[in-house]
Amino acid sequence: MESVNNSMDGCDDIQGVLSTEVKSFFDSAPPLKDYDHFSEKLKLFISQNFQRSENQNSTRIVCVTSGGTTVPLEQRCVRYLDNFSSGHRGATSTEYFIKSGYAVIFLYRRGTCQPYSRNLGEETFLEYFEPSKGTEIQVRQSHDEEVKNAVRDYHTAAEKGMLLKLPFTTIFEYLQLLKLVALSMKCIGSGGIFYLAAAASDFFVPWDSMAEHKIQSSGGPLDMRLIPVPKLLSVLRNEWAPSAFYISFKLETDSEILLNKADMALKKYGMHAVVANELTTRKEEVVVVTSNKKITVRRCHQDEDVEKPLIELLIMQHSQYIQQKQLGNAYLS
Amino acid sequence: MESVNNSMDGCDDIQGVLSTEVKSFFDSAPPLKDYDHFSEKLKLFISQNFQRSENQNSTRIVCVTSGGTTVPLEQRCVRYLDNFSSGHRGATSTEYFIKSGYAVIFLYRRGTCQPYSRNLGEETFLEYFEPSKGTEIQVRQSHDEEVKNAVRDYHTAAEKGMLLKLPFTTIFEYLQLLKLVALSMKCIGSGGIFYLAAAASDFFVPWDSMAEHKIQSSGGPLDMRLIPVPKLLSVLRNEWAPSAFYISFKLETDSEILLNKADMALKKYGMHAVVANELTTRKEEVVVVTSNKKITVRRCHQDEDVEKPLIELLIMQHSQYIQQKQLGNAYLS
Repeated sequence: MESVNNSMDGCDDIQGVLSTEVKSFFDSAPPLKDYDHFSEKLKLFISQNFQRSENQNSTRIVCVTSGGTTVPLEQRCVRYLDNFSSGHRGATSTEYFIKSGYAVIFLYRRGTCQPYSRNLGEETFLEYFEPSKGTEIQVRQSHDEEVKNAVRDYHTAAEKGMLLKLPFTTIFEYLQLLKLVALSMKCIGSGGIFYLAAAASDFFVPWDSMAEHKIQSSGGPLDMRLIPVPKLLSVLRNEWAPSAFYISFKLETDSEILLNKADMALKKYGMHAVVANELTTRKEEVVVVTSNKKITVRRCHQDEDVEKPLIELLIMQHSQYIQQKQLGNAYLS
Repeated sequence: MESVNNSMDGCDDIQGVLSTEVKSFFDSAPPLKDYDHFSEKLKLFISQNFQRSENQNSTRIVCVTSGGTTVPLEQRCVRYLDNFSSGHRGATSTEYFIKSGYAVIFLYRRGTCQPYSRNLGEETFLEYFEPSKGTEIQVRQSHDEEVKNAVRDYHTAAEKGMLLKLPFTTIFEYLQLLKLVALSMKCIGSGGIFYLAAAASDFFVPWDSMAEHKIQSSGGPLDMRLIPVPKLLSVLRNEWAPSAFYISFKLETDSEILLNKADMALKKYGMHAVVANELTTRKEEVVVVTSNKKITVRRCHQDEDVEKPLIELLIMQHSQYIQQKQLGNAYLS
């Protein structure tokens, strides 16, 4: 096992091997505001989960990324480009991972679906309650079971130290946080999973070439040129946390190109599994693409989450991956 | 007083006088999904508020628009351009309008701040509660008063029929809803206010020239051309609900150009008041710009909302406006 304390310090070494493109992305990004606070929380969360495990090899932590990232078009941000993602997949998957004994680092877009409250409608929680005697309030009969279960399950997960939530908004915050989490999780080795369900922006405007003030609308059409976000997936996979198990997602609206793109992502970035979703059917079925097969995962009935069989399958694959790694290590030693 | 029932039927006549630009915007926009449902709700809300008033001239209804609109870049929307707005101003103002006896049509962006829960943090409501005896839950001591007051105030407003909430996401939905509300409110005459706090997009991609499927990221930089959204404010002001009192907002990051732009908006669109906000100080002070003065409104202390004195001032101006209108009518008759 690598040391927890040293895992942060590798940062500068790693920067050295990054391509100029990636390095310049991080160099020009506005610094992450709560870096020290998040870093402390992560260290504590990971060391507590180490202690909770029977032995250090049995620690299981998954980083679930969730929701879309934004790309600011102005430094003092009024306008931005956004990627659609409710965060429902990430929030739901988090619940099933925790149920299976995995601790979850939930890296989520502010304002998106949260674990345990994802089924409670999109509007204000005030509607689930009503005034009762005196100054008291009570849960409305229509939401009674749902709300009470949600509060109980959420608190159980939080109290056991199984859930750490870290929020982001921009692509800059997301990638800096992902790097921080990855370097912190390096010490978990093959017990770690990256479940990359967030819809990260493909294009961005470099911070230093961005308008400082609000773009004025008086001057006719607005022409924008965005450049591709450097593909950090291979750096994450090969440098930041090279022993972890990697699952990424492909969402397309055109089913024709979906499986091809999933296959390409698998090979190009060395993912262990790619979950292929089609926009309109993604709540009913997904296809898990691995190097040697494509498995269609469907929910059994309308009330079931497709994430239930999906997480079961992925955890099985993760266990096989750990066994192979251990066999490989035993063979080498 | 104009008839409530006929207020929807003017729609086709009004289209006739709209400029080609505005007409083509509405013609090419994807039809509003819940049009009939929203239209029914609006009719009911307005007629109930008529009945509740002592006499029909004393009906006071304000349409508060809140949050930013999105501009889809793809028809099956994955990527979109967004305008930053938490919706805090609109949600807070709604509470103060209701407190002053105004019924509020709250036209809000999905997922933004809601009246009565705006101070309850941005994250999941599950954190305000904790499990108690058996399967019961209770409000956490730390949030006890806040949560109970919020539930009580929200339900009081809802039960009295003082609050109607209508959600939007895209600029297409927002402008179609605003038109529907305006035509429904025409019958209120000068008792109506439009409090246009939403951050509507200035630029858009016409629906029919939009990519049907997700834009692929493999082909180098992304070049986009957006065209200006037609300025509907003058159509709203002059055609849809010409007797109402109009308040619009200017938000700028550069204080130098703010007051100039507020002045221009006042004259160009015939607003009765423009609230000028500077991005960094907008929670402490705003400037209310009218045709003959500029009044700086500041909150008195840190715990006060700047919306408290702001709404007081605007309601005073609205009352003067109604008096002038009535005097004008008396003089004419």
